[in-house]
Amino acid sequence: MHFTSEQRLDEGLVERAFTLGEIPGILWTPESASATAPVPLILLGHPPLGLSRMYPRLVGRARQAAADGFAAATIELPGSGDRPRWPAVEQARADLRRAMEAGEPVGDEIIDALVLPLVDRAVPEWQEALDALLSLPEIGGPVGYSGGVISIGVRLAAVEPRIVAAGLFAGSLVPRAVFEEARRVTIPLHVLLQWDDEGNDRQAALDLFDAFGSREKSLHANMGGHTGVPQFAGDAAAQFFARHLK
Amino acid sequence: MHFTSEQRLDEGLVERAFTLGEIPGILWTPESASATAPVPLILLGHPPLGLSRMYPRLVGRARQAAADGFAAATIELPGSGDRPRWPAVEQARADLRRAMEAGEPVGDEIIDALVLPLVDRAVPEWQEALDALLSLPEIGGPVGYSGGVISIGVRLAAVEPRIVAAGLFAGSLVPRAVFEEARRVTIPLHVLLQWDDEGNDRQAALDLFDAFGSREKSLHANMGGHTGVPQFAGDAAAQFFARHLK
Repeated sequence: MHFTSEQRLDEGLVERAFTLGEIPGILWTPESASATAPVPLILLGHPPLGLSRMYPRLVGRARQAAADGFAAATIELPGSGDRPRWPAVEQARADLRRAMEAGEPVGDEIIDALVLPLVDRAVPEWQEALDALLSLPEIGGPVGYSGGVISIGVRLAAVEPRIVAAGLFAGSLVPRAVFEEARRVTIPLHVLLQWDDEGNDRQAALDLFDAFGSREKSLHANMGGHTGVPQFAGDAAAQFFARHLK
Repeated sequence: MHFTSEQRLDEGLVERAFTLGEIPGILWTPESASATAPVPLILLGHPPLGLSRMYPRLVGRARQAAADGFAAATIELPGSGDRPRWPAVEQARADLRRAMEAGEPVGDEIIDALVLPLVDRAVPEWQEALDALLSLPEIGGPVGYSGGVISIGVRLAAVEPRIVAAGLFAGSLVPRAVFEEARRVTIPLHVLLQWDDEGNDRQAALDLFDAFGSREKSLHANMGGHTGVPQFAGDAAAQFFARHLK
């Protein structure tokens, strides 16, 4: 893990860009974090649109995390932003767009081709980032995972024991194989569902929520489309992490 | 409205029993409430088990309301507690129990016979209580309605313009006629659903949530049975009222 820049944002928040091998990432820590007072960490997931495009929303979530006393970190997804293009996934994305624009049902093969390679590559990268982040003296734990491609969150929640709580956003297509992995998830979950999300199958999201093996899981459904998550729903997600990471 | 007793509970909460004609009720007000500083009001709904049996949970909800600066009030439901028995509704309840114990589907006629008379009688009584409560100098408004028989909450939310926000608990059978009234509800709603509620049809609860006409409506689904609402779900409901009544 190699830090490439550091700046102090408002309210005592330190933002550091880093690279992890070829993967760019950003770490936000409250200035209060230190080797003698290490802080919990929230991994900030995001859709595959590139870190620079997602930056405004990510830094907003990092500010909320810092206000609660947590560090936050994110890494670029494979095939996104400044990372090398990934023709196979781009092809799958084009197939998905074509099917949706034609009003055709989106078949399992399109979902699998789009999402499974992304999950298979991204999850070990997040775990590698976690290794590096937890080796920093100012980052202690516990660790939460929040948002982004829900299939990545499901896989991470199922396989990564250092993640103790996950906030997931029902907003993308979930391959059948990942759906089955959801049954093995046992950590506390907080799932956001935008009831009228154009790009999301509501019933599939409810079925996924039902499948999770966790004894504590909450579904918060709110009105509006994919980008219309109300402020109070963000506050509720922050309270979920405050309950589980403090 | 005739007050029959008054006592000061802990933390500056005043509890007054009252009768409204033949209907018993309880009003809780924070000591800070006065004619020069009138407070908002939350009407506390409850299942038809009698006020004295429900008292421990009701006073807990009243304490939360007072902590947020609100008065809270409730009245006995027709046919419950010390009010005259209501043979027709008791018969319908026995029919429901028999059908559920026999594992038979609960038909519309049983639901209608059980719930519609209760809604038809209870809603005007709550409105009459609201008239009396709002005439007290220490009660100002706005008014919220919380919990209890969901069909009563739906009807009140649809017909009573003084209620500006409602917290509903998906936990009882909803007649088709009340389901249709849900489309006319436009106030902000906060709906709790216990995902594994034995006495509740999950799909019917989701359909009802979908039917509400409100632009702001949130569904909070949590694990556990009907009486297993987690503490954090109660906190979220309190925050909903704090947002809308302050």
